[in-house]
Amino acid sequence: MGTNVMIPLCSDFTDKHDSICIFGTGDFGRSIGFKMLQSGYSVIFGSRNPGDASLLPRAAEVLSHAEAAQKCSVIIVAVQREHYGFLKELTDVLRGKILVDVSNNLKINQYPDSNAEYLAHIVPTASVVKAFNTVSAWALQSGNLDANRQVFVCSDDNKAKEQVMDIVRAIGLTPQDKGSLVASKEIEDYPLQLFPMWRLPMYTCAGLTVLVFLYSVINDVIYNAEKKNDVSFHLMITIPNKIFPVVSLMLLGLCYLPGVFAAIIQLYRGTKYRRFPNWLDRWMLCRKQLGLVALSYAFLHAIYTLVIPIRYNVRHRVEMSIISQIKQNRTRILDKPLTWRSDTYLALGILGFFFYIVLGITSLPSVSNTVNWREFRFVQSKLGYLTLVLCTGHAMVFGWDRFLILARYRWYMPPVYMFSLVIPCIVLILKLILIIPCIDNRIAKIRQGWEKSTSSKSEKK
Amino acid sequence: MGTNVMIPLCSDFTDKHDSICIFGTGDFGRSIGFKMLQSGYSVIFGSRNPGDASLLPRAAEVLSHAEAAQKCSVIIVAVQREHYGFLKELTDVLRGKILVDVSNNLKINQYPDSNAEYLAHIVPTASVVKAFNTVSAWALQSGNLDANRQVFVCSDDNKAKEQVMDIVRAIGLTPQDKGSLVASKEIEDYPLQLFPMWRLPMYTCAGLTVLVFLYSVINDVIYNAEKKNDVSFHLMITIPNKIFPVVSLMLLGLCYLPGVFAAIIQLYRGTKYRRFPNWLDRWMLCRKQLGLVALSYAFLHAIYTLVIPIRYNVRHRVEMSIISQIKQNRTRILDKPLTWRSDTYLALGILGFFFYIVLGITSLPSVSNTVNWREFRFVQSKLGYLTLVLCTGHAMVFGWDRFLILARYRWYMPPVYMFSLVIPCIVLILKLILIIPCIDNRIAKIRQGWEKSTSSKSEKK
Amino acid sequence: MGTNVMIPLCSDFTDKHDSICIFGTGDFGRSIGFKMLQSGYSVIFGSRNPGDASLLPRAAEVLSHAEAAQKCSVIIVAVQREHYGFLKELTDVLRGKILVDVSNNLKINQYPDSNAEYLAHIVPTASVVKAFNTVSAWALQSGNLDANRQVFVCSDDNKAKEQVMDIVRAIGLTPQDKGSLVASKEIEDYPLQLFPMWRLPMYTCAGLTVLVFLYSVINDVIYNAEKKNDVSFHLMITIPNKIFPVVSLMLLGLCYLPGVFAAIIQLYRGTKYRRFPNWLDRWMLCRKQLGLVALSYAFLHAIYTLVIPIRYNVRHRVEMSIISQIKQNRTRILDKPLTWRSDTYLALGILGFFFYIVLGITSLPSVSNTVNWREFRFVQSKLGYLTLVLCTGHAMVFGWDRFLILARYRWYMPPVYMFSLVIPCIVLILKLILIIPCIDNRIAKIRQGWEKSTSSKSEKK
Repeated sequence: MGTNVMIPLCSDFTDKHDSICIFGTGDFGRSIGFKMLQSGYSVIFGSRNPGDASLLPRAAEVLSHAEAAQKCSVIIVAVQREHYGFLKELTDVLRGKILVDVSNNLKINQYPDSNAEYLAHIVPTASVVKAFNTVSAWALQSGNLDANRQVFVCSDDNKAKEQVMDIVRAIGLTPQDKGSLVASKEIEDYPLQLFPMWRLPMYTCAGLTVLVFLYSVINDVIYNAEKKNDVSFHLMITIPNKIFPVVSLMLLGLCYLPGVFAAIIQLYRGTKYRRFPNWLDRWMLCRKQLGLVALSYAFLHAIYTLVIPIRYNVRHRVEMSIISQIKQNRTRILDKPLTWRSDTYLALGILGFFFYIVLGITSLPSVSNTVNWREFRFVQSKLGYLTLVLCTGHAMVFGWDRFLILARYRWYMPPVYMFSLVIPCIVLILKLILIIPCIDNRIAKIRQGWEKSTSSKSEKK
Repeated sequence: MGTNVMIPLCSDFTDKHDSICIFGTGDFGRSIGFKMLQSGYSVIFGSRNPGDASLLPRAAEVLSHAEAAQKCSVIIVAVQREHYGFLKELTDVLRGKILVDVSNNLKINQYPDSNAEYLAHIVPTASVVKAFNTVSAWALQSGNLDANRQVFVCSDDNKAKEQVMDIVRAIGLTPQDKGSLVASKEIEDYPLQLFPMWRLPMYTCAGLTVLVFLYSVINDVIYNAEKKNDVSFHLMITIPNKIFPVVSLMLLGLCYLPGVFAAIIQLYRGTKYRRFPNWLDRWMLCRKQLGLVALSYAFLHAIYTLVIPIRYNVRHRVEMSIISQIKQNRTRILDKPLTWRSDTYLALGILGFFFYIVLGITSLPSVSNTVNWREFRFVQSKLGYLTLVLCTGHAMVFGWDRFLILARYRWYMPPVYMFSLVIPCIVLILKLILIIPCIDNRIAKIRQGWEKSTSSKSEKK
Repeated sequence: MGTNVMIPLCSDFTDKHDSICIFGTGDFGRSIGFKMLQSGYSVIFGSRNPGDASLLPRAAEVLSHAEAAQKCSVIIVAVQREHYGFLKELTDVLRGKILVDVSNNLKINQYPDSNAEYLAHIVPTASVVKAFNTVSAWALQSGNLDANRQVFVCSDDNKAKEQVMDIVRAIGLTPQDKGSLVASKEIEDYPLQLFPMWRLPMYTCAGLTVLVFLYSVINDVIYNAEKKNDVSFHLMITIPNKIFPVVSLMLLGLCYLPGVFAAIIQLYRGTKYRRFPNWLDRWMLCRKQLGLVALSYAFLHAIYTLVIPIRYNVRHRVEMSIISQIKQNRTRILDKPLTWRSDTYLALGILGFFFYIVLGITSLPSVSNTVNWREFRFVQSKLGYLTLVLCTGHAMVFGWDRFLILARYRWYMPPVYMFSLVIPCIVLILKLILIIPCIDNRIAKIRQGWEKSTSSKSEKK
């Protein structure tokens, strides 16, 4: 909010900076050239036909590639990888210069090596620095840098890297040192990513959603259709409101299951210094995303539930029930245990949802940045398990003794809520075993660096 | 949260820093002097009557202006612009010194030139740096820097600027280089601003709210009063719950309309290198704020809707309906299409609201900072249009065939929900045309820098 | 989100950095050694028995303490305070070296002096720098630095401090200068803290919750039990939904009460330059946390209220009411004043809750960082009081004339909502007095630095 308010106004201190050369007069070249002029650099464009420069900013000089390169020590190569060829002829002119590779590919792993490494291979006489590829031309032009001001920089030449990082700072962006040129592969993949950490949680969630949907349709809509009772309108709210809580609870369980597995593996191995299996590592790294997907389903479940009394068919059913009671001249008496049960599962659900939201808020980057490790662990572990216990309790009290009444099993299919309880119960039982004092102590020791075999003297933490 | 926990304790390293001079013993002078003493600087106050220094920190020296200035290379001018006059006599003493202008004005554009430029004009022998004006005396005293730790710094003298930025860092604040002294005008306006980007969205929202309110009052309360039916209590919930969804949907449409206009203009011009008209530029820059205002109305609509079954008059109406059915001895049959419609519009509304909230969360600065451009565009554009489609569908299914039943037009006034559909439908129809492959390709080319006339060879991105 | 995506890949620029020595081969020593190797440093471990180095990274050298220390200028002491003794013998070898103390204690105030000061006392020939104690070994190993990348650094030797801060930056963390070694005490306490600013609000909230709970149980459950009416199921939802709004409103009042007290004290003293009493200072520093606790209770109140029509016993009561009306053949007429009252208190509650949430969102660190002081004050003070007025109005309209009907006083105990109104009403009345123009002007003058006695000429702000 308001980041657009203060667009830098620095315009007239050309005394400040060296001149910078830009090869390539395409969109990105022009945008970054414009930005650098704004920040007080003098800019020289290198172009194949320096005459045709109508689109370039007036303040910039336009020369041939060789001439432009000679005048500057830093050259930004705003040219696509396929056109790097012309640089071969310039190897002598470029000796000792800093070449900044700003290119991106169209898809991940398009080439075996990164563009920056390829550039370093073509012009071995220059120092190649990878930078600016995460910034879009549009963002540079509009000054709208809401998304990301970070510029990843890497190079094998530390002095060249420092110089480029200074330029990054000078035009109002934040450089982040990513080390040597080996990192350029990863840096080039970064802007092509579309929520990589969210993929596994999303696929898991989609898979579970489809399964529960199909099960519910068979168990509810088709079963009723068989009985000549068309309840296909259940597809809009009733069935989604079975899917959301069931999948949400499953995902919440899946959030805490890998942590329990990790503890068991560490306990069995007697050390924390051996790597976890790959599947467990990947699972553990996307726990936060799993949790947030589960939270959004819990949120949807909450609203779908609150909306129940507004639904036309619910209101109609209530009316019918009252009218039939009157006609039959008998009234239902308040069922005390049912009252307790109804209020208890609502209260458990609300409290679970509340702590869930607290967990979600503390996972916001700016909030989690203000807490220390002890606090972070307290929130994520203590509050997390409290949430899991409350939500599992919510589902159990909701189900109550229904799992015993076989008449409720339509076509021998158990009610769908029962599936949601499997993973959370496994997690909670394993966790209960793990916090038995003698086991807990052993895990604590292992996590502090103790090992079964070596039994090293613990020197620190 | 917890930012107050670690108030710097640096107290005894007076060896570290040079001494700093402060002209002016007012509130701000004292506060910043105190802070600098805390951070290990030695501080010398310059005062008209150095004898009267009862309020100044004991650790600071107090001298006459000239004496104080001679002892330091950096002088903070904590004096109001009207009193800058006395500095004229000190031009010789101040030769080569760094003068830091910390002043603010009482209102925007109070003077034709900025205070810092005026100071540079009065004391041409010194290097003037603008800084610290965004920090409040109270914040410096209390250590409560929740709002903003950023200090905008600008100067025509880069060395002087660097030196002042070091001082900013040393007292625990974050300097931000704003370039040359020309920027001081903007920097001086900054702390006087009150949500400048929110003004247009707020006024738009207020105007629409008043219009819809008046329309609803005429269409509902006055119409019913005419029929001797006092429904003035509708003013509390029923009418607000018409205003909120209608205005929210209009604003959401207004969020996406300028983007569509921009695409059409670019398509027509065949280039992206000509500036948009001013009104479109301003509109596009406040889209985020428009969206957040629309979201808050959507939030209010959601709660006003959920609260319906708790309202006394709603409960009363339900009771009356049941009792009258019994008395007349006929019961309404479940209306299947109505069931579908009721559940569908609720489900669409809930899903639209959910994606709306996701959009709102990703617009939080700390969240949008962790995504790359591709992800940001995906969320803001794909999810944004999904939200618009869901909310428009919500309103359409809510209305259903009501717009055909002229009997429902009270005083020939169409139901208010119909107005809310105009803008979203225009946006969606234009967008549908724009994503026809041949048009979409052309826009994509233009956005990558292609131009109709020049048809330049695209060198990069 | 996504912070794990770009784990630094810097691996092969050993040319870049000096070598660093690490005393101690425990968990933390190994982790930080590994991280430094990754970042291009060469690492030499100092160990009591250099032969047994099976757990150390292969790339690191392992020598005796003295040999290792001789080779490097920076030595990280990853040893617990109890084992610092062996360093006494090394005072000659360590002359002029930089010793980095990374230790933490098990509890706050375990020792009279900080570990870093103790280390400086043992090895007076070296420069001691406190750093890295807020980082966990696990975080260094896993690369998961979600919680906190900040490393607090302090030292009496500024050059040594700068050098350590460079190392911190090089391994991808953010150093924060905390001044001289005196600050080490505070830095060592930091990771042991568990939400220190939240303690007072939490205890206040817990205390009030228990009081209101007991009062409600007596007033409702026990009173009814006496009358042979078992309403013990009220414990689940009805009574919590009395506790949440009542305590929330009390806490909201407590948020604004200290500000009013502070203004009165300043007015009475005629200056803002004398410190507030300690209790008031502590109270004012935790207002934000008080407000957030109050907000979470308000959130719970909102959901507990929305859930009412879904509760089994509420549905049962509604049915009974309708059936009894029919049997007695008389229908209740719509009570217009009651309709107004019901809709008004719902509307006030919803609007109050809405502004409450806006306040909560602006207190998120990343949001409050983007506003200037004028905006921050506007939101926190203007919006804050608006929220207080709306919520107080909500409670008053809810109560209406009930406080006059003594028959409603069960056992002469007034309804619990009345208690919640005491503090907000005091705050609002005092505030109303304080914004009387003549008083308001005087406070404004005092806050700008004016003083009753000295009546100093205000030079700035």
